[in-house]
Amino acid sequence: MTDSQVDGFQEIDQFFNPKRVALIGASSDYRKLGNSILMNLLTSEVEVFPVTRNRDRVLGVKAYPSLEDLPEPVDLVIIAVAAKYCAGLIAEARKAGARAAVVISGGFSEIGAKGTELEDELVSAAREAGVRIIGPNCVGVSNSRLFNGTFTMMPERGNIALVSQSGALGGMIIYTTRTKRIGISKFASLGNAADVQFSEVIDYLGDDPKTSVVAVYVEGVDQGRTFFKSINDAASRKPVVVLKGGRSEVGGRATLSHTGSIAGSTQLFDGMVRQARCVTAPTLDSLLEICKLFDYQPLPAGRNIGIISNTGGAGVLATDAATELGFHISALEENTRQELRQVLSPMASVENPIDVVASGGRREYRVSTELMLKDSNVDMLLVICGVPTFAGMTQTEHAAGTLEGIRTADEGKPVVGVWLAADVGKPGKDLLEMNRVPCYNDPYMATLCMARVAEYAEMHRSGETT
Amino acid sequence: MTDSQVDGFQEIDQFFNPKRVALIGASSDYRKLGNSILMNLLTSEVEVFPVTRNRDRVLGVKAYPSLEDLPEPVDLVIIAVAAKYCAGLIAEARKAGARAAVVISGGFSEIGAKGTELEDELVSAAREAGVRIIGPNCVGVSNSRLFNGTFTMMPERGNIALVSQSGALGGMIIYTTRTKRIGISKFASLGNAADVQFSEVIDYLGDDPKTSVVAVYVEGVDQGRTFFKSINDAASRKPVVVLKGGRSEVGGRATLSHTGSIAGSTQLFDGMVRQARCVTAPTLDSLLEICKLFDYQPLPAGRNIGIISNTGGAGVLATDAATELGFHISALEENTRQELRQVLSPMASVENPIDVVASGGRREYRVSTELMLKDSNVDMLLVICGVPTFAGMTQTEHAAGTLEGIRTADEGKPVVGVWLAADVGKPGKDLLEMNRVPCYNDPYMATLCMARVAEYAEMHRSGETT
Repeated sequence: MTDSQVDGFQEIDQFFNPKRVALIGASSDYRKLGNSILMNLLTSEVEVFPVTRNRDRVLGVKAYPSLEDLPEPVDLVIIAVAAKYCAGLIAEARKAGARAAVVISGGFSEIGAKGTELEDELVSAAREAGVRIIGPNCVGVSNSRLFNGTFTMMPERGNIALVSQSGALGGMIIYTTRTKRIGISKFASLGNAADVQFSEVIDYLGDDPKTSVVAVYVEGVDQGRTFFKSINDAASRKPVVVLKGGRSEVGGRATLSHTGSIAGSTQLFDGMVRQARCVTAPTLDSLLEICKLFDYQPLPAGRNIGIISNTGGAGVLATDAATELGFHISALEENTRQELRQVLSPMASVENPIDVVASGGRREYRVSTELMLKDSNVDMLLVICGVPTFAGMTQTEHAAGTLEGIRTADEGKPVVGVWLAADVGKPGKDLLEMNRVPCYNDPYMATLCMARVAEYAEMHRSGETT
Repeated sequence: MTDSQVDGFQEIDQFFNPKRVALIGASSDYRKLGNSILMNLLTSEVEVFPVTRNRDRVLGVKAYPSLEDLPEPVDLVIIAVAAKYCAGLIAEARKAGARAAVVISGGFSEIGAKGTELEDELVSAAREAGVRIIGPNCVGVSNSRLFNGTFTMMPERGNIALVSQSGALGGMIIYTTRTKRIGISKFASLGNAADVQFSEVIDYLGDDPKTSVVAVYVEGVDQGRTFFKSINDAASRKPVVVLKGGRSEVGGRATLSHTGSIAGSTQLFDGMVRQARCVTAPTLDSLLEICKLFDYQPLPAGRNIGIISNTGGAGVLATDAATELGFHISALEENTRQELRQVLSPMASVENPIDVVASGGRREYRVSTELMLKDSNVDMLLVICGVPTFAGMTQTEHAAGTLEGIRTADEGKPVVGVWLAADVGKPGKDLLEMNRVPCYNDPYMATLCMARVAEYAEMHRSGETT
């Protein structure tokens, strides 16, 4: 790191690792954002100073009429009051000790000329005072290990950072992390990005030791070159996955009224993401699913995929998807096939894709997993379980067998599960995911995620930074 | 219906509407399929006669040593004993009154020459005795209103029929219906389809008044022309959705060892599905999701789509997906925009896609839904809810508003929901689905399903059978 990078890191770190936080617009009215944010802050591990002129106490906590009245200096100020008051509060924030402010309030450039004027004033005030601003028109910032400075849920704790242009969409993705149990390290919604830019947050997350993968939702970026340089730099240290909104012409128009940014041509954007050696997520659902695979498993050494299934049809569908997405369904070594033949049912297929058939249980999954992983023709393994209840077996047994096989083989090759049958298979799926084998409900989604991971591995195997 | 069609209908109907069922291979050993099938039959509304030489009672029910010993004639015989015994049982089945037999047992043509011989014997025995056979090498048959003659779960009750070449995959899809609460009318797994063909079951389901949509999983068909004629005929009465396994060359090889059939060229197959005025499902996950939309909602009159969202980013992503999939994002009537402007927040967008913004609640969803549906520029409506908790609102309120808007507009146009935030949004999603507004977790999946429905509507608006 150069000195200026260290400074940049510390500047952005103030947003994610504050000790004392003031909230302007703290409210006891459940219809106000300042109420949701305060509830979130009060369940965080930071000291919280609610600021409001209306009451002495809010949600049972002592409140202060203004930043001037705070008993101690603060590191971060969160602002949730009407747009016209925001610029005036920045100098006060600096006096109160903060060099960082999150402006939740909307009513800035996203609403047109009048708002743009207010946004310009806000930025001027920030430059003058030496305060950095995230927002305005955003959902806020959270650090799952420390505090929730947003009006959305605290994310499930983990290693994936999410930075989103759309606050509400970002907030919604955070909600899904609780159901999907996908862990988040840090979340930032940048809104209009009037001061702190995507590139700065991405630079920071690239250096953040608590973050293993960076997920980005972006509609359009003003400073394209800086953005692509940042994702390129971050991608040399960890995977960066980009979901682009506003790909279509009309979608692009919608972003204009949404965050006020102009979405560029899709093809151009996708090409630049690839040139920056990052990968794209084709759909909302796939964004975190791709990140989960990056987070849980090592990178593959090549495109030779092994497939194990107990459901012929699912093996067929996975093979279709893998072939379509550029994988090779490797021919297995003679030795692998012979050993499989000894263990599996006579009805089983010992050619890739392996079908252990419905009678295949814990032992069959263990042996197939181990042998496939040890086979030098297999770079990554897809394990499918479709039938949970034959002969009283459960998908948990199949999952346990898979885990045993991975441990015995100890090859460091990526393994992915497709655990079908929805909630019926959930205990098996949970067992695998708790052991960091990512599981998917659909062979296509699993294969898509593997394709993105293979793509990233290839781009970074080939060497030099572009 | 011609006379021969009536006969065909009655022949297949014996499999789905038996009164008395005998199970050969009934077992009290939980590791045997004959145990799972018996448990399923005993919780059905048919009279069950377990047949086994081993015991007098199985699972507490009187068992018979052979079909000859049954006290009454039966309509259907289910066979789950070793392959070599199956052919010999067919004449006995006929003597016991049955003209229909489901052969669950594997070990026939799917294992090679020796099995093919047994399969030929089985078919000869059936032709000679005048018994129709489903299978062998299959999971069985169920009718959610009457009985479960499979070793998989009883499906959730509903209107979608599923016919699957892969038994295990079909069984797995049935499992997901319980979690997804997608209702099934009848399920048949055809396995090797040695006697009863896809085309016959599809003809039957096309005529079945309890079935509104037919879902087909097929790997390859021996009698292609008959298959496509049947789906074409059925599609003139109700939508038929086809998922094809074995699209890739290697996938095709996998089907050979799986069900012994040869998968044809993908492009050719897809083209023939379209020519038969049916639609394809691109992935396993999408098969029932597409059927759900067909089942719940009317067909659209055109490709003009209206989009409502409270999450700008999700509106942008839905617009992208809709544009990519061939929808027009209609310009709304002047009147619609004016009325929306009066009701929605000044921050809201009243151009399609409408953004009611985070403060939009029950009222805003109600009014937007009503106005959009009444707008003559809108043929179908996509309603997205991404942010559940602003100001204490719940996604249930948004769902309630949407339902009110649909009732007030009363336009008979299809409406689809995208309910984000995973389990947090589940109560709202459930409320919509209980009222037959299908909901999806991802804008892309919702739009994909709408595209298939629009495609079917277009093919059938244009008139004549091809």
